[in-house]
Amino acid sequence: MLGIELKRKSELKLWRQIYQALKDLMLSGKLKAGEALPSTRELARELNVSRNTVCEAYNLLIAEGFLISRQGAHTRVSDGLCIESVEPPLSPKVANNAVQSISVSFRTGSPDLNQFPRFLWRQLLHKASEELPLEAFNYCGPQGLPELRREIAAWLFRSRGLKVSSDDIFITAGATHGLHLIADMLCRNSQKLLIEDPCHIGMLGTFINKGYSIVPIPVDTEGMQTDYLSKCQSTGPIYVTPSHQFPLGGILPASRRAALIRFARENDLYIIEDDYDSEFRYSGKPIAPLYTMDPQRVIYVGTFSKAVFPALRIGYVILPYTLQARWCDLRTHTDVQNPSIEQVALAEFLRTRKLDRHVQKMRKIYSQRRKVLLESLKEAFGSEWIAYGDSAGLHVAIDFPGKLFDEAFKKSCLENGLYITLVESHCIEKGRHQSKLLIGYGHLEPDVIRNGVALLSDIIKKM
Amino acid sequence: MLGIELKRKSELKLWRQIYQALKDLMLSGKLKAGEALPSTRELARELNVSRNTVCEAYNLLIAEGFLISRQGAHTRVSDGLCIESVEPPLSPKVANNAVQSISVSFRTGSPDLNQFPRFLWRQLLHKASEELPLEAFNYCGPQGLPELRREIAAWLFRSRGLKVSSDDIFITAGATHGLHLIADMLCRNSQKLLIEDPCHIGMLGTFINKGYSIVPIPVDTEGMQTDYLSKCQSTGPIYVTPSHQFPLGGILPASRRAALIRFARENDLYIIEDDYDSEFRYSGKPIAPLYTMDPQRVIYVGTFSKAVFPALRIGYVILPYTLQARWCDLRTHTDVQNPSIEQVALAEFLRTRKLDRHVQKMRKIYSQRRKVLLESLKEAFGSEWIAYGDSAGLHVAIDFPGKLFDEAFKKSCLENGLYITLVESHCIEKGRHQSKLLIGYGHLEPDVIRNGVALLSDIIKKM
Repeated sequence: MLGIELKRKSELKLWRQIYQALKDLMLSGKLKAGEALPSTRELARELNVSRNTVCEAYNLLIAEGFLISRQGAHTRVSDGLCIESVEPPLSPKVANNAVQSISVSFRTGSPDLNQFPRFLWRQLLHKASEELPLEAFNYCGPQGLPELRREIAAWLFRSRGLKVSSDDIFITAGATHGLHLIADMLCRNSQKLLIEDPCHIGMLGTFINKGYSIVPIPVDTEGMQTDYLSKCQSTGPIYVTPSHQFPLGGILPASRRAALIRFARENDLYIIEDDYDSEFRYSGKPIAPLYTMDPQRVIYVGTFSKAVFPALRIGYVILPYTLQARWCDLRTHTDVQNPSIEQVALAEFLRTRKLDRHVQKMRKIYSQRRKVLLESLKEAFGSEWIAYGDSAGLHVAIDFPGKLFDEAFKKSCLENGLYITLVESHCIEKGRHQSKLLIGYGHLEPDVIRNGVALLSDIIKKM
Repeated sequence: MLGIELKRKSELKLWRQIYQALKDLMLSGKLKAGEALPSTRELARELNVSRNTVCEAYNLLIAEGFLISRQGAHTRVSDGLCIESVEPPLSPKVANNAVQSISVSFRTGSPDLNQFPRFLWRQLLHKASEELPLEAFNYCGPQGLPELRREIAAWLFRSRGLKVSSDDIFITAGATHGLHLIADMLCRNSQKLLIEDPCHIGMLGTFINKGYSIVPIPVDTEGMQTDYLSKCQSTGPIYVTPSHQFPLGGILPASRRAALIRFARENDLYIIEDDYDSEFRYSGKPIAPLYTMDPQRVIYVGTFSKAVFPALRIGYVILPYTLQARWCDLRTHTDVQNPSIEQVALAEFLRTRKLDRHVQKMRKIYSQRRKVLLESLKEAFGSEWIAYGDSAGLHVAIDFPGKLFDEAFKKSCLENGLYITLVESHCIEKGRHQSKLLIGYGHLEPDVIRNGVALLSDIIKKM
């Protein structure tokens, strides 16, 4: 009578099929306001189901207000239910473009996960999951687990001589997350951000998404050119990568650091220090954070994405006291906290100094790969190139004086199976770094690096 | 000569102590620009350390630009290093207020974690950690692991008859995180948010932090009073909890749902549906999401914080196609992705239908506790109270007609060891719900519930 068809073999229970069919009839207006429904007994007979099945459907429709039931009267359709049905969007998913086959990817910021002690990590996870107290399943507060913060403080002290109280450390879900919260925290109306140019364009997007207007400060081989700061018409928080400028690789020298601090003090600004890979320095000890020069003015952003692995999603910020309460409030309203289990496992990884050992091992491997890259470049290009910046990190910026690299070049590389990034892609003001390429080598075996350089050489020579 | 004192037993290596001491001397101006340092040999002799130790310190100071070294000449101090030292902030940490001893906490939104199958969960984590492919350690994209999204889609289908493609599901770090990203995604200049009043005040904070101005829409026993929508001077996204209004507990009836959808269509608005606890309905089947009525207009926000555990930090949103690309971009610039391991474990928890069983078990337990609460209230207060809303969730709003509950009452409860929330605390416009209290019972054993009601009764009778 109502035209309901049931599928006996569906995963959807029969009562729900009836419920859904009735609902559709009402929403589309085929069952009209005030119309009486068959009794549950009648409909059960018609559909050849138990009366209980029909009752389940009717009861939910009554609870949801689709049907009105009155003692001793027919169950009727409510008023005001009809809404026009909407066409489903046309072919919502775009067909994937034919995926280019990449034989060498010089992408930046990728650690070599093959070297990660996965078995050890699994043991740490097992241990953590076995020892996890009941409280760790509940909300644990926005700052992060105390044992992890203590271990990070101890590790910063022994690896970089950085003295910091675990009270000033706030666990994040990685550097991007830290920067996202900082961007929210420092944002005012028509907020400016003073930032290195070139800089990490993804990170820049985090600030642009928040409505910041961007004031680019040019970068040379020694990082941000702090002389330009005093020429800025308006000020705002300053974003720097002083230990290893991204992407050009310079170390910000002490005099520029001092100038930066003085400028920040004079203008009452915060400095955001993004220390994305300073663990990996090959020509000497890790560079000291700018943070040490003024812990009340510098917000330090650290991450374990490179030293441990990216999908861990754990980083930390060290915050001046003045920002700590605001941070906790913001984090509570953003994503509450990190999950517990990785925090516990990472604390143990640090406590047992397994991270120190892993970083030491990776420093050797990455340093070796960097050497292979530079040698291959020398073989392929003689002296027609210059490596930029400090011997550190997982990538290097290479200048080929006289060349002009553009999107067409990048495309032509892709067509030849090579993924490479232009420094220009990370530039705010375009046109100043067109002769430079970024080569990420950390994740690549020596042979792959050599193949990549050979591919690059073929393409550049055809330019 | 330089007055450097070394601590032989410090965890800080000797070279770093020398480095730090020299740096402090330069930053404070005690070593002046251009001043010559002793040779490494001289300083090593003076400090009774190896020459290498001094070299390490000098080399890092040179790399950092504190010192300038020229072949055949003395190593000298760079220019422009001096910055004033800053007083450390005075006693930064406020002494903790004497913590009140709470014997019964009627806090809302807390599942009973004692009932959670922790051993099973540990097994799932072990399995996940053993089977985790190498790719799962790297960046996996902003949408979340496909196997988890598939399992959520299957679970929504079998538990609520909700047909949704896993392509439309986006994993979040919990409901707050989902709402935070939605707030960012839908925010325009001087953006309004139309929201139930009362509503969850923490969630409201997420939108206020983003700069939304709030347009409160009154709530009655059936949820948002949609008649008020057409009276709004200005519009914006609409936030609702239609399956179980927070905090009053009403189910939004079908006619109001239809009115809401029509209003959203006429004004081209999105509806944000926060489904925070609809798994736990005691008087019948879970209410169908509003989402089913218009998947192109409704953003559905779900969470596993109640059904699994809060520190899991996994939830999901179901997004209209028009918002999906923007979501992915925002997530990439916010916190990139969830960690992998919990996603894999949760997918298996769903696939093996262990979640279904756990929810079924908890539904019985919570329903029982609700019964105990209502019986205790009846014993203590006779008929002087009314329970609000549907029989669902982990809390209930109780109206004591004629009473006036305020902060002084809450404080007096605390002094008697009872934590309780006023509905007024969740109100935007104050003064309309002063006779109502919120009682969270999900996490409490029956005896604790009875003790809590006894405490409450003593306090109310003294009013």
